[in-house]
Amino acid sequence: MAQQHLDPTDPTAEVVTGDALAGYLRTHATEFLRALRLHRETGGATGSGEESVDAARALRRSARRISGSLHTYRPLLDPAWSESMRPELAWLSGTLALEHAYEARLERLLQALHRLSGAAAFPEQVTMSGGAAAAPPERGNLTVGAAERGNLTVGAAKAGALLDRQLTLARTRAHSTALQALGSSRFHAVADKVAVLASEVPLTPTATTTDLGPLAGAARERLTDAITALPLLTAGHPYNAEALIHGLSPDPSPHPQDGPWHQVRLLLRLHRYAREVLDAGTPVDVRLLTAGQALNRHRDASEAAAAAAQAARTPRIAPATAYALGVLHADQRHEVEAARFAFQRAWQREAVETV
Amino acid sequence: MAQQHLDPTDPTAEVVTGDALAGYLRTHATEFLRALRLHRETGGATGSGEESVDAARALRRSARRISGSLHTYRPLLDPAWSESMRPELAWLSGTLALEHAYEARLERLLQALHRLSGAAAFPEQVTMSGGAAAAPPERGNLTVGAAERGNLTVGAAKAGALLDRQLTLARTRAHSTALQALGSSRFHAVADKVAVLASEVPLTPTATTTDLGPLAGAARERLTDAITALPLLTAGHPYNAEALIHGLSPDPSPHPQDGPWHQVRLLLRLHRYAREVLDAGTPVDVRLLTAGQALNRHRDASEAAAAAAQAARTPRIAPATAYALGVLHADQRHEVEAARFAFQRAWQREAVETV
Repeated sequence: MAQQHLDPTDPTAEVVTGDALAGYLRTHATEFLRALRLHRETGGATGSGEESVDAARALRRSARRISGSLHTYRPLLDPAWSESMRPELAWLSGTLALEHAYEARLERLLQALHRLSGAAAFPEQVTMSGGAAAAPPERGNLTVGAAERGNLTVGAAKAGALLDRQLTLARTRAHSTALQALGSSRFHAVADKVAVLASEVPLTPTATTTDLGPLAGAARERLTDAITALPLLTAGHPYNAEALIHGLSPDPSPHPQDGPWHQVRLLLRLHRYAREVLDAGTPVDVRLLTAGQALNRHRDASEAAAAAAQAARTPRIAPATAYALGVLHADQRHEVEAARFAFQRAWQREAVETV
Repeated sequence: MAQQHLDPTDPTAEVVTGDALAGYLRTHATEFLRALRLHRETGGATGSGEESVDAARALRRSARRISGSLHTYRPLLDPAWSESMRPELAWLSGTLALEHAYEARLERLLQALHRLSGAAAFPEQVTMSGGAAAAPPERGNLTVGAAERGNLTVGAAKAGALLDRQLTLARTRAHSTALQALGSSRFHAVADKVAVLASEVPLTPTATTTDLGPLAGAARERLTDAITALPLLTAGHPYNAEALIHGLSPDPSPHPQDGPWHQVRLLLRLHRYAREVLDAGTPVDVRLLTAGQALNRHRDASEAAAAAAQAARTPRIAPATAYALGVLHADQRHEVEAARFAFQRAWQREAVETV
């Protein structure tokens, strides 16, 4: 419906200018400050309750949007300010994201271990009707305790305990890091800048008469170019067995084949935020969301697979533990492949319906 | 094209009687004797050359067809003879099949290890463009030697060596068993009976005027009933993650979920042989072949996955070996899932086009 904004050659297109950008930035700066206040009130970085988690998520959410808009609409903003702001926002949202990422990764891996053990679904959790359908729950409350591991094999239980130990440690460290970050002068400097942004957006003198369309179009083009370079034909063939092709490769680094997909995930997000500036109030394009969710799942599965492989390198583990971690790694790589298939489906539909 | 024979209510159907059955049995009895002669000339059970393998394959091929026809068209044949013949043919083809099965299983697993290591494809072998496309070669010449394992990880190389040891041992044992079987009086009794069959088929007095159609129809019905009971809806959804659902189950027996698929594989073969009797000279239905190949692949992957799991239970293996075997097991279970998907596709097409 708002495609018109993205086509600079469309004479019927309503011109959206820097005023819209200023409005969008003010809105998300205000959101950021609200989330920050809530975060402090609910225990801040020391809290782990649901409200505190929600507040941290809202903080990251607005930081990403501000940062993304600064990038896409760079020519309309004071360059010095913009260039000093972006890395700080990236640092902040990256730091805040880690704790949640480790928690969600552990949750995903423990759920997969349960599914692979043919165990019953968790009482209050997602019905595990199949890995393909089973996205990790939005909030990770670790419900797999020692008691529930009773029906796992020794290998699966030990693998679960090992992952629990390693990822909980990583999460605790991430929590401390986030705590330090939120108390740092660096953070206070960012918060101050965002507070200023909430009332005063440093636009360039010509911004209010500049059409945002071409800049949003360029963001879209960067996305479609990156997607064109993806192996979508292969991804569209179910069971192409591509994602696991380096499953036993001597290279311990994350699968290099995942890189271009991660890149598209970021570009898709930038494109979505660019559209949000233009389409204020318009509901989000569902197909774009679906494609984005597939890429989130791709990233999560890719990192979970790497965590399983990493855990298998722990010295002196039992062969049964290593075996379970191997099965788990392959299962998550299969999820990577499934996510690519889902993205391909969502994107092709998108292309047909909006072009 | 020959569907008419299977519909007993079709008044235009050309009636095929016991004469056709007698002809079919004589043909395959002659084939059996020819293969047996060839097998003895090429070194018999002690030979392992290509011709000897071909001869053994031809022996099994005709034994299966004779046995299948005896089953489907039982009412047209002397019951005492028929009942004494079938188990002997089953014993024979089962005994002869084992050696080749172990060889093919090892080949499949070593190829998968190479694929999972991101290693280059074998020079003269199938291009491993993906597990889904890569059916194991019809004849297993083990081309993966120690030298070629150079580019595998330690775990993958050790897993390969372990599987090589275990499956080569099993294959050697199967070879000895086949050797003993072919020298046994039990085998000579079967061969004598087949020699008689080549000239004289023990039909019942009314067989030459009995329509084979309803019996072939019943074989088809047993097949379609068994297929109806399969979870085809799930199988038709790519990445349903069903096949690996007991990947870490404490139950060491082969996946019980595979049973119904194995059963359909046998019923599909019986249906195909039943049609061969009716459709003498007509080319084989390609879609039926495709569906059958998918089920062969299902069986092969299922057994390869079990072999990997079994190898992982070897005492005192290194964790890296166990990890590689876990990845391999999961990979082969994905192949199981992919084969079900392929069968579902082939069969649905079949149903639409021939009903």
